[in-house]
Amino acid sequence: MYIPKLHEQPDLHALHALVRSHPLGTWATQGDGELIVNHVPFVLDPSRGPYGLLRCHVARANSVWQLFSRTVPSIVVFHGPNAYVSPSWYPSKQADGRVVPTWNYTVVHAHGIPTIVDTPAQLLEHLTELTASQEGSQAVPWRLSDAPAEFIEQMSRHIVGIEIPIARIFGKWKVSQNRSASDRLGVVAALRNNADAQSEAMAGLVEQTPRQ
Amino acid sequence: MYIPKLHEQPDLHALHALVRSHPLGTWATQGDGELIVNHVPFVLDPSRGPYGLLRCHVARANSVWQLFSRTVPSIVVFHGPNAYVSPSWYPSKQADGRVVPTWNYTVVHAHGIPTIVDTPAQLLEHLTELTASQEGSQAVPWRLSDAPAEFIEQMSRHIVGIEIPIARIFGKWKVSQNRSASDRLGVVAALRNNADAQSEAMAGLVEQTPRQ
Repeated sequence: MYIPKLHEQPDLHALHALVRSHPLGTWATQGDGELIVNHVPFVLDPSRGPYGLLRCHVARANSVWQLFSRTVPSIVVFHGPNAYVSPSWYPSKQADGRVVPTWNYTVVHAHGIPTIVDTPAQLLEHLTELTASQEGSQAVPWRLSDAPAEFIEQMSRHIVGIEIPIARIFGKWKVSQNRSASDRLGVVAALRNNADAQSEAMAGLVEQTPRQ
Repeated sequence: MYIPKLHEQPDLHALHALVRSHPLGTWATQGDGELIVNHVPFVLDPSRGPYGLLRCHVARANSVWQLFSRTVPSIVVFHGPNAYVSPSWYPSKQADGRVVPTWNYTVVHAHGIPTIVDTPAQLLEHLTELTASQEGSQAVPWRLSDAPAEFIEQMSRHIVGIEIPIARIFGKWKVSQNRSASDRLGVVAALRNNADAQSEAMAGLVEQTPRQ
């Protein structure tokens, strides 16, 4: 991924926070001479290795677990908020008109070589963790043990666990760092005016991130 | 991408509509023995070829335009709404507890071999189209001609145009098609209760898509 210095997010805590808040990863790998891309929720274990370890599972019917490259690192993309930015939002447009549209977004790219986790005990541990990571915010968190054990065991036979130790991790925060203070205020006001959660999240990022 | 039959979206109009409503594409390619993934807004020309043609541009400083594979098709992913689905939302949970969590999402994968568009006239045409596609919903749409011509010409020297004729296109609509009518109503009600635009969009998709 092309990351100009001003859009680089070097803070591992910020990268991990985005993975946790947007856990549906876009997993790209090579296999059988083609690209293979799938979408699965991940759980991050930040305690493993220098950058953490990602765990997920796929349907056993999904051939990616047989085909994924064991030599070329996979890339798992986690997408934070994104929003179109109109040049009309920049007060500086009035001065000389030397402005163009852009698109703000935040993404994390985790690179690593996947391995298969296929013992029933490890798979059950992964499913328990994944459930806990998503149910924490529910009024009455559902737990794996709420379902009959034989049912979970039966479902588990239809999935394959995957672990990806993160060898390299990159964050791109494209959040108007290159604009003047007044242009940034214009962007924040217009995004808030969109009145949706994603624009609101992007407005917050533009506010929080210092100009570079 | 693994697509069980019940999650397959075969309607080209629906796929094109998702590309237009979520135009920030995740472009994956091979290059230099590695995967390369970048995020750029695309414009779709539905009139070209059987599935349409995608146009975008990247910074000239982004080496992807020199490295992208000319033999292995790229995949461009367009992400529609996604939402976690708790098993607690299913009335059927009360019956026998035989339920597990899942994640609903819609995505489009466009496959094709990119080519470079590097004549100033074609690039200007692309920028004009891209601007029109995004500014249409603004109160006072900004146009490329609002900026000084020499400024746009100068900016254009720093970008490279890319065209991807779509050779294959896939849509995965994972929107609770496998659940009973009452479970689907439970999902819709809980998503609406989240009170954010993305959950609302997913609730609408669950409502609209017939059970398979």
